[in-house]
Amino acid sequence: MRFTSGQRLDGDVLEREFTLGEIPGTLWTPASAPAPLILMAHNNGLPKRAPRLVARARQSAAYGYAVATIDAAGCGDRPRTAADGQARAELRRALGAGEPVDDIFESLVGPLVENAVPEWRATLDALLALPEIGGPVGYSGWTALGIRLAVVEPRIQAAGFFAGGYVPRARREEARMVTIPLLLLLQWDDEGNPRERALDLFDAFGSKEKTLHANVGGHTGTPWFEVEDGNRFFDRHLK
Amino acid sequence: MRFTSGQRLDGDVLEREFTLGEIPGTLWTPASAPAPLILMAHNNGLPKRAPRLVARARQSAAYGYAVATIDAAGCGDRPRTAADGQARAELRRALGAGEPVDDIFESLVGPLVENAVPEWRATLDALLALPEIGGPVGYSGWTALGIRLAVVEPRIQAAGFFAGGYVPRARREEARMVTIPLLLLLQWDDEGNPRERALDLFDAFGSKEKTLHANVGGHTGTPWFEVEDGNRFFDRHLK
Repeated sequence: MRFTSGQRLDGDVLEREFTLGEIPGTLWTPASAPAPLILMAHNNGLPKRAPRLVARARQSAAYGYAVATIDAAGCGDRPRTAADGQARAELRRALGAGEPVDDIFESLVGPLVENAVPEWRATLDALLALPEIGGPVGYSGWTALGIRLAVVEPRIQAAGFFAGGYVPRARREEARMVTIPLLLLLQWDDEGNPRERALDLFDAFGSKEKTLHANVGGHTGTPWFEVEDGNRFFDRHLK
Repeated sequence: MRFTSGQRLDGDVLEREFTLGEIPGTLWTPASAPAPLILMAHNNGLPKRAPRLVARARQSAAYGYAVATIDAAGCGDRPRTAADGQARAELRRALGAGEPVDDIFESLVGPLVENAVPEWRATLDALLALPEIGGPVGYSGWTALGIRLAVVEPRIQAAGFFAGGYVPRARREEARMVTIPLLLLLQWDDEGNPRERALDLFDAFGSKEKTLHANVGGHTGTPWFEVEDGNRFFDRHLK
């Protein structure tokens, strides 16, 4: 893990860009060390530098968590293959034409998740080797990846998922194997993500402690207080 | 409003029993005055002195809210008519026999709500005349009554509803007229209250700011952290 730049922010948070092999990442650390860690995975419809993702990470770091994120292959700051570009163009075309998009999402998101898993685990290894990060470890954001990681990665002890993204069939079928405490965040009127699927997914999780927070509004309308609720959720399980 | 007894509790909370005409009530006030007020209405399947209701009220009072509750006619500490007893016996019989109970609930809960509305409004008048209570006013608990009060009582500025109770058809039809900020609390596996109805009700409310918190477990399994989440919800709207 190589740090390539850094800046000190309000609330005594240190924000650093890093690379781990080909993987570009960002790490936010609070003044208090060693800190518990939140892996903040976005679903890669946005780059990791998207302002609302960065704002969320900075808030949780100022609150006392180390927060780390990376871009997946073909996303954000990483080079795209011709196939990546073609799949995304086909998705945009189908969405624009109002055609069914499940099969396109399966072929796009399925491999994206599978390829992201070893990268996140390698990143977790590197992060936990830093003296300023102590654990325990929580996970926040991208549901499809989070399900897979929660199943294979015993170091993750609690997870907050955002329901606004396509979850491949193989991951939905794994939901019952997720048993860590969960907070699922749903935007009630999310245009591109059917509400029923999110409710079915919530129902399917195997966790004995699981909570759904649904707020009125579209995909990007999550109210800011949910960041604070998320911090308190992690406090209950990581502190 | 006549105070009939009182005791000082941990957290410097004063707990007092009162009567207002025939209505028996309990008022919890925090050390800081004048305090904002939460009307904590239970759905009268339990008396107001039920330990988990009292614990919730005490916690919110220690947190800084004045909290008041009353028993509805025929419930808790109030005398029952022969008709009350008959309706409840019929309900128990039908539940035990696994028969449909909607019509019984309509005839039982419909009038209970209609009769409770003027009592709660008179109680609110009396409470706001006390120097230790300043307002603004929130509402917590019994959904069916809360819908009606939110429609007719402009002094109520935010409401937390518990979905675990029968909501008469007339009140469900009024849900779209509720426009104050709402937090709806749902127990995902509540044996006696169909989940779909609660989700439909959440969908129907007219509020621009509405949040659903659903937790795994049965009717009485609401986790304690929801009391704290409720306090913070009221902080956003009453402070």
